[in-house]
Amino acid sequence: MREFELLHHIYASNKALGPRVRIGPGDDMALVELAGLDLLAAVDQLVEGRHYRADSTPLELIGRKAMTRSLSDIAAMAARPVASLVAATLPPDFGSDRAMQLFDAMRETAAKYACPLIGGDIAMHAGQAAPLVCSVTVLAEPAAVGPITRSGAQIGDHLYVTGRLGGSLQPDGGGRHLTFTPRIDEAIILAQQLATRLHAMIDVSDGLGRDAGHIAELSGVQIELDAAAIPCSDSIEWRRALSDGEDYELCFAASGTVPKQILDLPVTRVGRVLAAAPGQPPVVVRDGRTLHPADQLGWQHAS
Amino acid sequence: MREFELLHHIYASNKALGPRVRIGPGDDMALVELAGLDLLAAVDQLVEGRHYRADSTPLELIGRKAMTRSLSDIAAMAARPVASLVAATLPPDFGSDRAMQLFDAMRETAAKYACPLIGGDIAMHAGQAAPLVCSVTVLAEPAAVGPITRSGAQIGDHLYVTGRLGGSLQPDGGGRHLTFTPRIDEAIILAQQLATRLHAMIDVSDGLGRDAGHIAELSGVQIELDAAAIPCSDSIEWRRALSDGEDYELCFAASGTVPKQILDLPVTRVGRVLAAAPGQPPVVVRDGRTLHPADQLGWQHAS
Repeated sequence: MREFELLHHIYASNKALGPRVRIGPGDDMALVELAGLDLLAAVDQLVEGRHYRADSTPLELIGRKAMTRSLSDIAAMAARPVASLVAATLPPDFGSDRAMQLFDAMRETAAKYACPLIGGDIAMHAGQAAPLVCSVTVLAEPAAVGPITRSGAQIGDHLYVTGRLGGSLQPDGGGRHLTFTPRIDEAIILAQQLATRLHAMIDVSDGLGRDAGHIAELSGVQIELDAAAIPCSDSIEWRRALSDGEDYELCFAASGTVPKQILDLPVTRVGRVLAAAPGQPPVVVRDGRTLHPADQLGWQHAS
Repeated sequence: MREFELLHHIYASNKALGPRVRIGPGDDMALVELAGLDLLAAVDQLVEGRHYRADSTPLELIGRKAMTRSLSDIAAMAARPVASLVAATLPPDFGSDRAMQLFDAMRETAAKYACPLIGGDIAMHAGQAAPLVCSVTVLAEPAAVGPITRSGAQIGDHLYVTGRLGGSLQPDGGGRHLTFTPRIDEAIILAQQLATRLHAMIDVSDGLGRDAGHIAELSGVQIELDAAAIPCSDSIEWRRALSDGEDYELCFAASGTVPKQILDLPVTRVGRVLAAAPGQPPVVVRDGRTLHPADQLGWQHAS
């Protein structure tokens, strides 16, 4: 059972969360109401050997990615950062200097995105072979519009992505997955421009195939992707662009006219939102005359 | 360099956190202001082999302790729980059933203390030998009075603790450190009863010796503990009661009359707050005619 399937199963059995929890587990961020004010919160983690290679990744980029992964969840809701907290479990021989470099990178990244690091915890692993684990919690508040959830896609909407997809993780362990920009500003501008026509959004971390599936399942619709329209990274073909993941671009469903770019970021129409039909997969890919059901494309969880 | 010394060092170099962060890193919780509303947040983690023994600790108690450690930070501020988030890194062979038991225990503990689990993330370790890590973020709001920080102790105050100290971790790995009650209700009642006379508070996790030291250092005072007054657990002598840690009782500085118990929990006066003097340690222990400086008592970080 894969990680997000396990989480899904765990949360499916969730008890009542109380009247203050307006968005529970399952979206990019949860939303809790505090005296009439909406607060968004999410946690994500970065695990050595899973989300980066220990042997070739500079500490600065490890700290940066730990923070930007969580910041990307804020972008996915079109929300505005408030603050962040970090828990790090360090290998026993990690050393103070490296711990400080790691925290400096996280703190500087947090500050750059107006999400100040307000709290943290450090623990040392007991065993020598234990990997570095950083978990980053981010708090956010709705921007002028929003928050935008995964569950609002409507039949007749089109599906869009920002930027280019695929090849984020290079064979040597480097690549865009370490240096991407969380699309916080772009998401807020998008939400302001489209207003009530922006129906659903997610950040592309698992790969567009799976992430479009999250929107489809939570919105109760089917999404048809157009293979020829996918904005692939250089030398990447559409199957990989849909499955690689770790792009941290925005994927959204909207009606009406959508700008071709936001700030300097291209926006591409990649599919459309259809009615869900019994027995049909949540996502299909049209490749010329062929219609591939998502479950036959072998998408793997990328991280 | 020990964990909290490392954190202290990291946070000492903290850049400006912005005008909304009213309590930064270094207290039990941070406080950020959101449109005039105070929000408290903290993160703590539970690491296999460090905070519990993997071979003898039931999953239910692992999940419970992961949550109650963070809930105890809420008690330390005399705050009221709002919501919690969990990130868990699992050994690859952990299995779905055990993951669900673990999350059930965390969710039930969170619900019991009115701190609903609103978000989470699960990742699998890449290596076989990697230990289970759970990090729990808690959000809270000030209760009628408060929040109570570590930094407000005043010369002339007395220092108090709730409950009994020492022996929380038994030789077989069991003990009160797995089953303690976070003193959330007691802290709120205490803050209501003492109001402006409750000057500083912390939860006893590192051991009273060190935790009194945190209050002393952040308040710019010296604390003199009275060895004969320490409420020791059965068969524990005062040196261990001061150093064992993982009691998760409240330690607070207050002026005037303090009740001898709150709800059913005994409250004991254990020391007094003096002026800090140059070259003097932040904590000393009076044992009859002998005055022990804290740094000669060899307190170790208990967890």
